[in-house]
Amino acid sequence: MSVALDDLARRLPGLRLLAGAGDLEHYGRDWTRRWTPAPLAVALPATVEEVQGIVCWANEHGVAIVPSGGRTGLSGGAVAANGELVLSLERMNRVLGFDAADRTLTVQPGMPLEAVHAAARGHGLVYPVDFAARGSCSIGGNIATNAGGIRVIRYGNTREWIAGLKVVAGNGELLDLNRGLVKNSSGYDFRQLMIGSEGTLGIVVEATLKLTDPPPPAQTMLLALPDMDAVLAVFGLFRAKLALQAFEFFTDIALKHVLAHGAQRAIEGEYPYYVVTEFDVPDEAAQEAALAVFGEAMEQGRVLDGVIAQSEAQAAALWRLREGITESLAPHKPYKNDVSVRIGAVPAFLHAMQALLAREYPHIEVVWFGHIGDGNLHINVLKPAGMADADFIAQCEHVTKLLAATLKEHGGSISAEHGIGLVKRPYLDSTRSAAEIALMRGVRQVFDPNGILNPGKLFEAD
Amino acid sequence: MSVALDDLARRLPGLRLLAGAGDLEHYGRDWTRRWTPAPLAVALPATVEEVQGIVCWANEHGVAIVPSGGRTGLSGGAVAANGELVLSLERMNRVLGFDAADRTLTVQPGMPLEAVHAAARGHGLVYPVDFAARGSCSIGGNIATNAGGIRVIRYGNTREWIAGLKVVAGNGELLDLNRGLVKNSSGYDFRQLMIGSEGTLGIVVEATLKLTDPPPPAQTMLLALPDMDAVLAVFGLFRAKLALQAFEFFTDIALKHVLAHGAQRAIEGEYPYYVVTEFDVPDEAAQEAALAVFGEAMEQGRVLDGVIAQSEAQAAALWRLREGITESLAPHKPYKNDVSVRIGAVPAFLHAMQALLAREYPHIEVVWFGHIGDGNLHINVLKPAGMADADFIAQCEHVTKLLAATLKEHGGSISAEHGIGLVKRPYLDSTRSAAEIALMRGVRQVFDPNGILNPGKLFEAD
Repeated sequence: MSVALDDLARRLPGLRLLAGAGDLEHYGRDWTRRWTPAPLAVALPATVEEVQGIVCWANEHGVAIVPSGGRTGLSGGAVAANGELVLSLERMNRVLGFDAADRTLTVQPGMPLEAVHAAARGHGLVYPVDFAARGSCSIGGNIATNAGGIRVIRYGNTREWIAGLKVVAGNGELLDLNRGLVKNSSGYDFRQLMIGSEGTLGIVVEATLKLTDPPPPAQTMLLALPDMDAVLAVFGLFRAKLALQAFEFFTDIALKHVLAHGAQRAIEGEYPYYVVTEFDVPDEAAQEAALAVFGEAMEQGRVLDGVIAQSEAQAAALWRLREGITESLAPHKPYKNDVSVRIGAVPAFLHAMQALLAREYPHIEVVWFGHIGDGNLHINVLKPAGMADADFIAQCEHVTKLLAATLKEHGGSISAEHGIGLVKRPYLDSTRSAAEIALMRGVRQVFDPNGILNPGKLFEAD
Repeated sequence: MSVALDDLARRLPGLRLLAGAGDLEHYGRDWTRRWTPAPLAVALPATVEEVQGIVCWANEHGVAIVPSGGRTGLSGGAVAANGELVLSLERMNRVLGFDAADRTLTVQPGMPLEAVHAAARGHGLVYPVDFAARGSCSIGGNIATNAGGIRVIRYGNTREWIAGLKVVAGNGELLDLNRGLVKNSSGYDFRQLMIGSEGTLGIVVEATLKLTDPPPPAQTMLLALPDMDAVLAVFGLFRAKLALQAFEFFTDIALKHVLAHGAQRAIEGEYPYYVVTEFDVPDEAAQEAALAVFGEAMEQGRVLDGVIAQSEAQAAALWRLREGITESLAPHKPYKNDVSVRIGAVPAFLHAMQALLAREYPHIEVVWFGHIGDGNLHINVLKPAGMADADFIAQCEHVTKLLAATLKEHGGSISAEHGIGLVKRPYLDSTRSAAEIALMRGVRQVFDPNGILNPGKLFEAD
């Protein structure tokens, strides 16, 4: 152990510290597999005081900290490859309180999203942010990237659901931000600044989440469509007539992978595009409206086939076709883009993007899918068998540079919901101006004057 | 004209500048009447370039700028009493665009809220933030204080409705923040930081507002209630059974003032508390549910009398009883508190607050009312005839100090929706910790290194 680590163990005798090779590898990486984990050690604090103690220690010794949740991130935000101390919040994973009048749930940051869902349901309410990694991602990580997911068209991003945050700032101060207030106009809202800051300003040690009523009974539908214009048109049609909770599309190539990975085919025949959509069916009238709009889309030739789930099990099977995609692609070491534009800019951007991908990846398989209703597309580029990792990444980075320029033209963002981390750092200037990036650096300096929190993420370390 | 002003006129020859005594007085104050207006001059830019030019000029000459909207603020945030240049946005008051797919309206900051409402309605949609000052306040000012109002229980504060902001920062840079994106996880969300920053970080020069569907047909009800506990109980009952859009209470003393100011009595007899509430009545079932819940509250003795509006004119007359209060009190030069606590903390705080006010203002009339559903109370202390202004304010400040301590005990905020400005600056530390205030100063320094934007507001100038 280093001198610094000895000192940490002496200061916080109860702190759980790991330094075995297996632990360093496990805690040093996230779902990106590009960097070789090489942390100094792993700290697993159990209390706010321990987190604060670690941050003070890190400031004194000049040791960098990588805050760590479920490490399901796709941008390298939780990678520790340079001798950092990994600060894992996984032991701080309890519900701290529920307030029926406020309809808020106060939790520790290491709680998996799925456990937050279960705790909310236990009070007859829901925490509505949801996505496929729910079982392993942590609520603290969701906050750090302002996670979105599959129900943004109904419920918005994580940001909308945060009533208060306790944060240990990079300077060691414990901040109690907004404290669950609905109305609070008392200066800068640092709660909002923390959301999406990827662990570079402070470490979330407690979150007060807003809950809401469960939605009415829902119906899940799988649609087969001829082309991307049909996907957009059918989204417009469905949005106008139904109360949508989700509207997710994917391509035939995505379907091929998820079927190969064990999912069940739900529609016979081959079609270029598919949509999984979920909408409210509070009563028979809504049920009839859904059938009518489905019929209308079929008549227009914009939907070629479709399945309506008749049971929860069938709905889950349809959802698996969409939610299983990321996992089914993992063995191919995909290079991921996660881009967004304004909803109104989707058609023009999609055409430009499709042309770009077809031109630049002529012999490489590209899988894309996304949340068409909020302007967010996920592009997964699969490494061809036999291609060297470095060559593959070099080519993808070249294309991402072009994609970033296309996004800039269409007013989009290089990261919709994955964050910037390490992966998208070279392209941040396509989305944020030089003046904004300079201000970000300045703000980071205010909260973390010694630059000990997640240095090198978002932008190069100073 | 000063040398600095001469230089401004030379640099921006098209800029409208006013320096007459009447203009200085008119533009130098807001709805607080405590400070004597004494600006250097008033600039009325017509373009973003002129705003940027003024900010650059101010940085070079070390002249302070007071950004100015409708000047309906109640905390002195737009007061110019120290030789500042007032930068009025009133000429930048146009709609710049509407996007049907995104359902956003892009406007200039000087647009009155009421004009924003009308523009949204013109597209069959609504901008749902609303309050009594709608005719004179500006959307830029709403953003600067994160204005709340009478429909927060349904729609939240201004913050929820901002899809993008263009801002001239204190350092002169033009920032184009978030650009209407639904999903954008690309570093710190400065759009959120700007909202509620009271013109101390940047000047909003353009805002992209989210719009939504008009609510279903609504019904307005006036209730008379025996005590504050009944107000809370009836709110709980109504919230559980009806889709509330608003639930506003006021006291008999407030009613007395508003009736004296010309409003029409709607309920015969005298009662200590009143509620104006509005809720959805999409169909007959909802109508019956509303009558049932009203009957239930009457039977419980928690509602003593009530009126249901039978026409839009009658609904407007009921609303006037609540919305006319602020105007009816203005001649009494009220000292205003605008406080909030978590919804769950309302009962305990209310009791403590009532005891405090009764004890500390034994011979002074106190009018209070507010938005019980979001934990926000407005307290108006009326200056007794014959009392000197200075003595009155000294007494109110003494009580506010005690109130701030009570708020701190109950986890509340010294400003729910009016902002801190000058009026609440001495009490900011009851709501935000010393560490938070230090970080606020640091962040301000990053955006406005020379401290030219609204110095002395929020906290003392450096």
